Amino acid sequence: MTESINILLAGSTEISRIPGISAAGSTPDMSMVTPALDVEILMEGKCISMDVPPMTPDGIPTPSLITRACNEINGIEVFPVNAGMGVKPKTYYYETGLKPARDPQKETALADMEKATGAGKHLASIMKEKDRVILSETIPAGTTTALAIVSQFVSEFRTSSSLPDDPNEQKMEIIRNSRKRTGNMSDPIKVLREFGDYMQAIALSFIENSKDQEIILAGGTQMGAVYFMANRLGYDMRNVRLYTTDSVMEHRGKEIEMVVPRERIRHGSIDFQKSIHSGIRKYSTGNVREGAGMGASILLALEKTTKEDVLRKVDDLYSNFL
Amino acid sequence: MTESINILLAGSTEISRIPGISAAGSTPDMSMVTPALDVEILMEGKCISMDVPPMTPDGIPTPSLITRACNEINGIEVFPVNAGMGVKPKTYYYETGLKPARDPQKETALADMEKATGAGKHLASIMKEKDRVILSETIPAGTTTALAIVSQFVSEFRTSSSLPDDPNEQKMEIIRNSRKRTGNMSDPIKVLREFGDYMQAIALSFIENSKDQEIILAGGTQMGAVYFMANRLGYDMRNVRLYTTDSVMEHRGKEIEMVVPRERIRHGSIDFQKSIHSGIRKYSTGNVREGAGMGASILLALEKTTKEDVLRKVDDLYSNFL
Repeated sequence: MTESINILLAGSTEISRIPGISAAGSTPDMSMVTPALDVEILMEGKCISMDVPPMTPDGIPTPSLITRACNEINGIEVFPVNAGMGVKPKTYYYETGLKPARDPQKETALADMEKATGAGKHLASIMKEKDRVILSETIPAGTTTALAIVSQFVSEFRTSSSLPDDPNEQKMEIIRNSRKRTGNMSDPIKVLREFGDYMQAIALSFIENSKDQEIILAGGTQMGAVYFMANRLGYDMRNVRLYTTDSVMEHRGKEIEMVVPRERIRHGSIDFQKSIHSGIRKYSTGNVREGAGMGASILLALEKTTKEDVLRKVDDLYSNFL
Repeated sequence: MTESINILLAGSTEISRIPGISAAGSTPDMSMVTPALDVEILMEGKCISMDVPPMTPDGIPTPSLITRACNEINGIEVFPVNAGMGVKPKTYYYETGLKPARDPQKETALADMEKATGAGKHLASIMKEKDRVILSETIPAGTTTALAIVSQFVSEFRTSSSLPDDPNEQKMEIIRNSRKRTGNMSDPIKVLREFGDYMQAIALSFIENSKDQEIILAGGTQMGAVYFMANRLGYDMRNVRLYTTDSVMEHRGKEIEMVVPRERIRHGSIDFQKSIHSGIRKYSTGNVREGAGMGASILLALEKTTKEDVLRKVDDLYSNFL
C-alpha cells in the first residue's frame, strides 16, 4: 500500500490585505483568517475559530471543503504546517514560529527565511518513510507572490486568481513597486526572500531535502511556481509532479506548461454543476479554481470511487456547514 | 536500517509550582520554563528563550544536555510535542493547544483530555512507518503525577525525584488532598483525567493507536507509570519497552519492576564522574537520574560508540553552554 501524507502549508502574506488582490475571504482583512479556517476544516471537518467557512464575496465556499470531502474518501492524513499564518488554527499543527510574509513593496518579504528552510529540512526528515508526500497550500494572495518570483525569470508568465476579473495589472503594479525597492535580481534564493511567501520557502526546502519519495505539488500556478524555482535551483525533480484541476488548466494551462513539463502534470475535476448547493455549483463557472490541494485530492479520491460519489460526499459535507 | 524518531512530550503541571516538589529549574516558577528550554536544547543544541540551561539549585544541568549529545551520535531525529507547556519554545514543535495540567487538589487536572487523546492518535498515524518510536518526556513534577495515578492501583509504588531528599511524604499529601476532592476512583481513564498530566494522556493514546512498531518508553518512574496504565487499559504491549538509566534502577528498580515486567526493561549509563565539568560529575552522585529520555539516548548512542566517546561529546556540548 502506498503510504501518503498531505502536508498543508498554511500561511499569509500582507499582500492579501490590499483590496482587489484576493477573494479568499469575504473581505481583504478576513483573508488573514482563511488559512486557519482551512486547517480546521481539513483536520476537523468543521470551522472552530468562526461559525462560517471562508467564502468569496460571490458566495463560493473555500476549496478546503472539497479537499476535506475527498480526503474522507482517499483516506490521506493531513499534516498542517504554519507557513506564516496571521491567525492560528484551533487544532493540531506544526508550529514554526513564522509570521505572515511582508509586503515586498515596502520591505524584504521573508525576513525569517532560514526558519522556513529549517522547517522544510526537519519535515523532510520526519516524513522520509512516506512513499508519497502531497504538498498543498492555503495562501491568500499567493498567486501574486507566485507571479512575483517567476516573472523575474519568465516575463510572459501569468497566474490564476480567485477573483472574477483576474487582477493581473494590479499584481504587476505591486511587482513593479517591489522591483523599484530591490533593483535587479537574478539569484533565485534572493528573489524568493525579497518577493516570495513562506509556503514556497518550506516547499522548496522540503524538495531539496527529500529522497526517493514521490512528491505531488498540489495546486495551480502557485505550485507551478514552486516547481519552476526548484528546477531552477537544480534540485532533483525526477519524483516531483504537479496535480491540479481541469479549471486551472483551462484558464492557465499555457502558463503552467511554461514552468512544468507537460508529462509531469495531472489534472481532474468532478461535475460541480450537478451539486445540490448553489455555492458548490459556482465551482463550474466561478473563479475559485484551486486551493488547499483541491485538484490533487479529487484525483486521488477518483482512484477510489466515482465522480458521482465524490460529489455526494462534497454535498453532504457542505450541508453540515449550512 | 531501523528508522527511529524521538517524540519528546514536553509539558507542565501546576504542581511544579508547589515549593519542594521539583528541582527541574532553579526555582519552582522557573520549572514552568524548563520544558521549553529542553525542547530548544534538543532541537537546536542551545537555549534560545534564556541564556542558561535549566539547572537544579544544586547546579546539576538539565538531562536534555546529555540527550542532545547522545542524539548527535545516534542520529535520531527529535519531534517535540506540546503536552501542556506553560511557555512555548522558540523552535519547531507540534502544537496541540494544550495548557499545563491543573493542580488536582483543586480541580480536574486534564480538562482537555480529549485534545491530548486526539493528538496521540494523529501522531500515531503520522509516525506509523517509523520502525521504532521513542516516547520521552520533560514534565517538571511529573513524578508526582506518576505517583498520583499509579498509587490508585498499587499502593506501595514510589517514584523517583530530582531533589536530594525525595519528597515522598509531600507528594502523598498532595495526592491525599486530591483524593478528598474526587472520592474513590477505579476507572484508569478517570484517574488519568483527575490526577494525571498530558504527557501521560498523549503517550497512552499513541500506544493505543500504534501498530507493529517498536515503542520505547524513555524515562524512569514517569514512563513506568505510562507502561502500567497502558497495560491496565488492555493495550497491546508486545512491542513496548522501557529504557532508563542505571541510576533510576538503583534508586527505584524495585518500584519500576512493580509496573513493568523485568524483561521489558533496559538501562545504561556512562562514567559521569570522569567528566571535566563539576555539574556533569554530579550525575554520578546527585539526584537527577532521568529526564528528556536521557537513559534511552545513552543506550542508543552506546550502540554506535564507546562510553568514553559519549562522555567526550557530553563534555564538548556542555562547554559550549558555559
